[in-house]
Amino acid sequence: MKRIDLEAHFVTPEYVSRLLANEGCPRYVEDKQAKVRRLYCFPDTPEPLPNVIFDRLLDLGEGRLRDMDAAGVDVQVLSLAPGVELFDPALGTELARKMNDALAAAIQKHPDRLMGFASLAPKLPEAAADELERAVKELGFKGWKTNSNFGDSYLDDEKYWPILARAEKLEVPIYLHPATPAIPQMRTYGFQLSGPVFGFGAETLLCLMRLIFSGAFEKFPGLKIIIGHLGEGLPFIFERIDFFHGKPFVFPEGKFKIRQRLSEYVKNNVLVTTSGNYLEPAFMCTYQTLGISRILFATDYPYEDSKNCIRFLEGITLSQEDRDRIYSLNASRLGISG
Amino acid sequence: MKRIDLEAHFVTPEYVSRLLANEGCPRYVEDKQAKVRRLYCFPDTPEPLPNVIFDRLLDLGEGRLRDMDAAGVDVQVLSLAPGVELFDPALGTELARKMNDALAAAIQKHPDRLMGFASLAPKLPEAAADELERAVKELGFKGWKTNSNFGDSYLDDEKYWPILARAEKLEVPIYLHPATPAIPQMRTYGFQLSGPVFGFGAETLLCLMRLIFSGAFEKFPGLKIIIGHLGEGLPFIFERIDFFHGKPFVFPEGKFKIRQRLSEYVKNNVLVTTSGNYLEPAFMCTYQTLGISRILFATDYPYEDSKNCIRFLEGITLSQEDRDRIYSLNASRLGISG
Repeated sequence: MKRIDLEAHFVTPEYVSRLLANEGCPRYVEDKQAKVRRLYCFPDTPEPLPNVIFDRLLDLGEGRLRDMDAAGVDVQVLSLAPGVELFDPALGTELARKMNDALAAAIQKHPDRLMGFASLAPKLPEAAADELERAVKELGFKGWKTNSNFGDSYLDDEKYWPILARAEKLEVPIYLHPATPAIPQMRTYGFQLSGPVFGFGAETLLCLMRLIFSGAFEKFPGLKIIIGHLGEGLPFIFERIDFFHGKPFVFPEGKFKIRQRLSEYVKNNVLVTTSGNYLEPAFMCTYQTLGISRILFATDYPYEDSKNCIRFLEGITLSQEDRDRIYSLNASRLGISG
Repeated sequence: MKRIDLEAHFVTPEYVSRLLANEGCPRYVEDKQAKVRRLYCFPDTPEPLPNVIFDRLLDLGEGRLRDMDAAGVDVQVLSLAPGVELFDPALGTELARKMNDALAAAIQKHPDRLMGFASLAPKLPEAAADELERAVKELGFKGWKTNSNFGDSYLDDEKYWPILARAEKLEVPIYLHPATPAIPQMRTYGFQLSGPVFGFGAETLLCLMRLIFSGAFEKFPGLKIIIGHLGEGLPFIFERIDFFHGKPFVFPEGKFKIRQRLSEYVKNNVLVTTSGNYLEPAFMCTYQTLGISRILFATDYPYEDSKNCIRFLEGITLSQEDRDRIYSLNASRLGISG
């Protein structure tokens, strides 16, 4: 059974030069004084990305395959990180197409090892939907990886729904990936608070909850959203999200857009990945609430070491059948098979 | 072994009339057209509080004791909800003193059944610290119950530290209770999103994380913070909060205020209660990460039914010793014993 990693990232030299040129994306800076390439990959980061990670992001060939072999990962579904979402929409749209073509070229060289999630610039929604269709139909991509916020808005905003409609029509998932929160209260203590320790997950879950409350899953019942880190805490509050269902104090009839219990939307429309939460009690909470069929393998390479994820999954008490579902079978039900 | 409920709420007629008069607190409104008392207890709520809950909040005597008897609760530690924090600071300070005196009078009638957490108006911090001292030393109160946000700021703001210092000196805990989030992105979908389903917990955990990052627990190592709902998701991310410790990309040496791993502050300074999260996998995640000695009994009466909490705790696989710790022994280590 192949291990298919749903969260693995890359950048290209052109993408980095666009970041460093600050075109439409002023929060990325180059350390010119030190005369070295230093990529401040996310807003708020106190230090640039270590060059070892930077090199791995740039490598779409042999080095990446060696790391995959060493960790025991058969297939990576690659996505651009942190993406084109923060650029000016016109530039983002142009860059998205270029990045998708660059990724497709890399995949063509190693079609048994690499797959792709599309880059899209959502602020030109019709163009983004068309580019998703091109990426899926012409390039063989498996879905869209996007950010937990678009600065002034989230994916629940109806202006982005043409992209949701197209994803549903094409039967491909959307991977909702953390970005530095747009919430000022989460950024007071810099990347320590706003980054992977807390803000990333908290805002990604907020974005998912907003999607549910917007009625997006009523409109697009076939839409599949993937979130990482074992669901960003969602399994832990899985009883609480339903507790107030039918109580008019919280959910007065006819005054909100959704009809089912919140957990129903999660069961119908949400899958979670293993990336970056290697705590057995959290895994068991996820397993027992969402069920094994909603847990997918992902490692967040190269930001994290893929070996850690596999070591964790091999170390916990699971049947081989359950592991096969996580590594491969659940992904194949999303049209992603190695 | 007595069951001591750490989260039980009350209001007084004067407090309600202040809310209804909108003095300094314009988000509370009375439905004058319907010519009935209708208390919109929290901002964003689409419907007023059901009168049955309102009546229970007002009852500091026989009705409350009957409900406690029916549920099997021996002692309630009472706190004003949603508190005086949102009033103008001068009025809040005056009201806090009145509410504490009113609560003390109720406790005096049933000293074996009722205890109290103080109300304080934190925006006059020295006066609030003095009132906490009066409430603890003269009225026998057990700590301070406060809100997850104060509108424009959180408890981590150093202007509030005189209260933290006094709580540490008096050796009493602070119960950090959810309020409607101050975060606009959490309020787009009204109370459905901002209330108990998501926003309450998400912002309370944000407030706790801010407290940790502010260095408050370096300054006040004896300070104890209590949060509800099995820790508002914190146990689920208990490995992830430490994952980046020592990695300069996230925690560059000398550039942030805290020295220990984040989990150390949680272990030293944070306790959680059982209120409002009755999901066994979430409980077991909490039990296995934080340990039995950090879990306290609380029911959120009368917003929730105390019976549900006890039914849940009696239904899960725990030793009697563990249950005794939750119901009573862990609270006694905070100076709260029946």
